[in-house]
Amino acid sequence: MKKNVLIIGAGGVAQVVAHKCAQNNDVLGDIHIASRTKAKCDKIIASVHEKKALKQPGVLEGHALDALDIEATKALIQKTGAEIVINVGTAFLNMSVLRACMDTGVAYIDTAIHEEPGKICETPPWYGNYEWKRAAECEEKGITAILGAGFDPGVVNAYAKLAKDEYLDKVTDVDIVDINAGSHGRYFATNFDPEINFREFTGVVYSWQNGQWQTNKMFEIGKEYDLPVVGKRKAYLCGHDEVHSLAKNMDGADVRFWMGFGDHYINVFTVLKSIGLLSEQPVKLAEGQEVVPLKVVKACLPDPASLAPDYEGKTCIGDYVKGLKDGKEKTVFIYNVADHKEAYEEVGSQGISYTAGVPPVAAAMLIATGEWDVKRMANVEELPPKPFINLLNRIGLPTRIQDENGDRPVSFD
Amino acid sequence: MKKNVLIIGAGGVAQVVAHKCAQNNDVLGDIHIASRTKAKCDKIIASVHEKKALKQPGVLEGHALDALDIEATKALIQKTGAEIVINVGTAFLNMSVLRACMDTGVAYIDTAIHEEPGKICETPPWYGNYEWKRAAECEEKGITAILGAGFDPGVVNAYAKLAKDEYLDKVTDVDIVDINAGSHGRYFATNFDPEINFREFTGVVYSWQNGQWQTNKMFEIGKEYDLPVVGKRKAYLCGHDEVHSLAKNMDGADVRFWMGFGDHYINVFTVLKSIGLLSEQPVKLAEGQEVVPLKVVKACLPDPASLAPDYEGKTCIGDYVKGLKDGKEKTVFIYNVADHKEAYEEVGSQGISYTAGVPPVAAAMLIATGEWDVKRMANVEELPPKPFINLLNRIGLPTRIQDENGDRPVSFD
Repeated sequence: MKKNVLIIGAGGVAQVVAHKCAQNNDVLGDIHIASRTKAKCDKIIASVHEKKALKQPGVLEGHALDALDIEATKALIQKTGAEIVINVGTAFLNMSVLRACMDTGVAYIDTAIHEEPGKICETPPWYGNYEWKRAAECEEKGITAILGAGFDPGVVNAYAKLAKDEYLDKVTDVDIVDINAGSHGRYFATNFDPEINFREFTGVVYSWQNGQWQTNKMFEIGKEYDLPVVGKRKAYLCGHDEVHSLAKNMDGADVRFWMGFGDHYINVFTVLKSIGLLSEQPVKLAEGQEVVPLKVVKACLPDPASLAPDYEGKTCIGDYVKGLKDGKEKTVFIYNVADHKEAYEEVGSQGISYTAGVPPVAAAMLIATGEWDVKRMANVEELPPKPFINLLNRIGLPTRIQDENGDRPVSFD
Repeated sequence: MKKNVLIIGAGGVAQVVAHKCAQNNDVLGDIHIASRTKAKCDKIIASVHEKKALKQPGVLEGHALDALDIEATKALIQKTGAEIVINVGTAFLNMSVLRACMDTGVAYIDTAIHEEPGKICETPPWYGNYEWKRAAECEEKGITAILGAGFDPGVVNAYAKLAKDEYLDKVTDVDIVDINAGSHGRYFATNFDPEINFREFTGVVYSWQNGQWQTNKMFEIGKEYDLPVVGKRKAYLCGHDEVHSLAKNMDGADVRFWMGFGDHYINVFTVLKSIGLLSEQPVKLAEGQEVVPLKVVKACLPDPASLAPDYEGKTCIGDYVKGLKDGKEKTVFIYNVADHKEAYEEVGSQGISYTAGVPPVAAAMLIATGEWDVKRMANVEELPPKPFINLLNRIGLPTRIQDENGDRPVSFD
């Protein structure tokens, strides 16, 4: 039984994580939140108290922390007695926070692949450049490190594994589709940290097809999907974290990631990218100042957390998994539908933050109860999916399936 | 006879000014170029020598200067013996350079209204906020200061005055139309300093109508013009410098400025502006750095001077001046057509820089010969237009007119 959680980060996803940890503090114990700006932690804590989210009386504390500072992070882990760290800070922090966890012997969970500020779209598989280099050491030291345990990556990895285990004899294609049919009423905004969001799309698009990495340009390949609840939506082949682990773990099946974009998003993205404003490389201003354009775009765009009060509509994220069952072709679509307004009412965040923030709490609970406390580094599809899906059903992200037998909930209780 | 010219600035317009001064150094004497970066002056000087532009052997020198430093500017004026300063640096420099000229007793020419970095679209008339406050002192000290002596403002002001003097008994409407039908082959670029260019359009649009200032939004009012050479083009009501002096000097006629924009420009502008990237006000990045977004956009966009080698096509800029002649309604269109490629071949700059850079040299020559050495501050329409138009005909910007008698050159030789 591991107990006591340290949450790294204090954005929209951290808000969800804090609320969900509070709702399950009988399992998780003390809750600590750390961010460079302690005031952001305090705001989240106030929101948790306002919603009376703590299931039972317990510790809920904020801390100022620069999580790039490994020694400071180790000291905070030790001071708080946290045995599980949920890292939902910027993706630039992963390797520092992971190191701090490995050195202090506590469990690590994140929701996105590590990134270095000056690099985008590195050589695939992306996990191989950073996290997986620590796998042997985790195994040796018995460290549980669960990588990419948000929704996508995360729950969609579990869906792929579930399809393989439960519904198909052989998987040939995994097509992950992420549609946000919600509306925030702003001219333009990203649902995640704009810096991380745009960095996903400014480089080359990697997919795993015919046993090798294929490259495309962003918005080069589009496809219309007709999904439950959100209906017909145009989605585009994109690079995304989960492709880089599923390529290894799905017995050679093709793995593609599709994200829905409206014409307005594509136009704004195209203008910004064409001018060079999405670049992660610094430019020199006439006055001599060196600035990363993407960071300025981020500063100009709305804080994703600020979208929550006005956000309406649904998200639909799931996996079309195709293969053979009893010698015949079969496709299942395993998915979740989330609602922006319901998310806001429950935890004060919009639906995208909700879908990203609930799963790492489920992962933490499975570590706390021992089911996922695997004492090694693992991507989500390397872990048993059923307890994860059952738990998500209970804590806010129900799973459904569509196949030749219709559309129905998925549960293994 | 005033002699010896100091050019402030070393961008695309300064390049034209230097070449044209060189071509007329029998009238203008020594030529000095000053910029923060002396290497940019040296590059212009090399280009002048390469084209063998100096009419007769003479001084052509570059100097490092921060023209916001009034004492340094005064020292350079004295050291060089310049009696005419042509200020084609950024519009933020005007008041410093003008002060240096007033203190040293030399003539001043500029091509745009003074601007303060943190302010855009101030209360009209814009000249009243800065330059005109120095008019009495110029008069008292006998300083010749010619404001806005580029093409627009500048030549178009002379066209308005010419229409009033020569072709109409009473002027009711001055509609200045600026169409660049050229193509630079880049995704997006501005023809002038992007910072100054965008600052023209991010605020309210002022026009002078029915004896008062009228405000509109940018791109709110569009109109199709059918112009000589460039044909049918959509132009939009914009704020622009010349409206702010012509409103005073055209006996109460309506004064509007129209600039041609393609849909692509409008789309890019709208995206950048809507996101806040054209703001002149600093934003704070997540890391704490303070940055003016517009300066980052400037750094990302092509240097306007770099467009010249590939620029093709024509510009057409002129004045529709409407009024009464012999009791009947009459409209004249007085205009110039310039060619990007010809400009580049002659002086190494594109056509927009050419139309902006030739007129201040004509003004300098008219000061040198005494015709415009008026010993006071003046906007161009307050000076005799004929010698200016005659000189422009000779040095590269021929004037034509369209009216009920057809389309023909304008000359008073």
